[in-house]
Amino acid sequence: VKPVPDKVIARLSQYRRLLTDHMDQDQTHIYSHELAALAGVSSAQVRRDFMITGYSGSPNRGYEIDELVKCIADVLDDPDGHKLALVGVGNLGRAILDYFSGRRPHLTIVAAFDVNPDKIGWHIHGVPCYHMDEIDRVVRAQGITSAVVSVPADQAQKTADTLVAAGVRGILTFTPAPMRVPQNVYIEEVDITTSLEKVAYYASTNTAVKREVK
Amino acid sequence: VKPVPDKVIARLSQYRRLLTDHMDQDQTHIYSHELAALAGVSSAQVRRDFMITGYSGSPNRGYEIDELVKCIADVLDDPDGHKLALVGVGNLGRAILDYFSGRRPHLTIVAAFDVNPDKIGWHIHGVPCYHMDEIDRVVRAQGITSAVVSVPADQAQKTADTLVAAGVRGILTFTPAPMRVPQNVYIEEVDITTSLEKVAYYASTNTAVKREVK
Repeated sequence: VKPVPDKVIARLSQYRRLLTDHMDQDQTHIYSHELAALAGVSSAQVRRDFMITGYSGSPNRGYEIDELVKCIADVLDDPDGHKLALVGVGNLGRAILDYFSGRRPHLTIVAAFDVNPDKIGWHIHGVPCYHMDEIDRVVRAQGITSAVVSVPADQAQKTADTLVAAGVRGILTFTPAPMRVPQNVYIEEVDITTSLEKVAYYASTNTAVKREVK
Repeated sequence: VKPVPDKVIARLSQYRRLLTDHMDQDQTHIYSHELAALAGVSSAQVRRDFMITGYSGSPNRGYEIDELVKCIADVLDDPDGHKLALVGVGNLGRAILDYFSGRRPHLTIVAAFDVNPDKIGWHIHGVPCYHMDEIDRVVRAQGITSAVVSVPADQAQKTADTLVAAGVRGILTFTPAPMRVPQNVYIEEVDITTSLEKVAYYASTNTAVKREVK
């Protein structure tokens, strides 16, 4: 099976949250142009994206919302659930644990790793914390395939190498240092501090800036 | 003054954290190629970026680290400090408050807003929480110019409109719904759930995906 392009995956994820988290409970159907307006994309884009899920809706009533959500789940969610590790339980790591605890039933952080002896051996937001040296053992034993990394920049590469050697194939990293990984490992970088510093800079200079269209 | 392009601002922010958070304390100088390797960019890129700060270093010893950090601060930081509002004190909003409390002395979240009566009138991680209806009054009174927004998707546009009307010129949003704002307002979008769902998808399919170069 050919993988779905990552911009389509991103939009399916966005559509699902728009459909499930924030819709009027009485609404059972939605037209492509309505969802397009909510998501800030064109109706044609919405229709192309849902062709991938194999559901085309009805010309008269639009898409059935429950059916759309189910089709998105068929693409995005592993039917057996998806187990994640968190590496680095500092301020941001704890915040991530807090945010994800129980929110996404198909995505579960099952193990956390740190080097701080005050954290190792304890549960943090319900998740057991192990020493970093145990990454290989725990990741293999639990069948963990993805990781969220929030370690100091100078630990980023070593952490990535350890995770990949243990079998991890997807990493969401919050550190400002780049990670070099094999081609078959997917890396997603989020840098909240940089995002905030950009916002503050442009708010202070109060000038329009030409941004790239995503 | 012409504003600095946003990719340069993003790299300056990244360089600063690489230089301040994670360097060996005995190291006083750094060559452009060393910083380039840490940041995952070319030496030429590092040198071009620092030309903007007006500091060119010495050919023999490279850049003086303290001087670099000061030059970056001259570009990025408002000398009077920068006041931010947080709108939406749910799980993610609280996590953001926790993460930023006292971390960045030049960026301070001074007011939080929600509609939940259990939160209004209390301090959350040291920040007073007001009703959303008070955004205009508090933002103007405190001279807040930027905001972090973590509200439900169906509240995103209304929140943006209220913030912009009150004088906010930069918004970091964590909601999956787009915000339409005037040209002179800078919007930065971060979607952690989508990032995590992308990572999980590609880890499950375990296939290389062609990503765009940033």
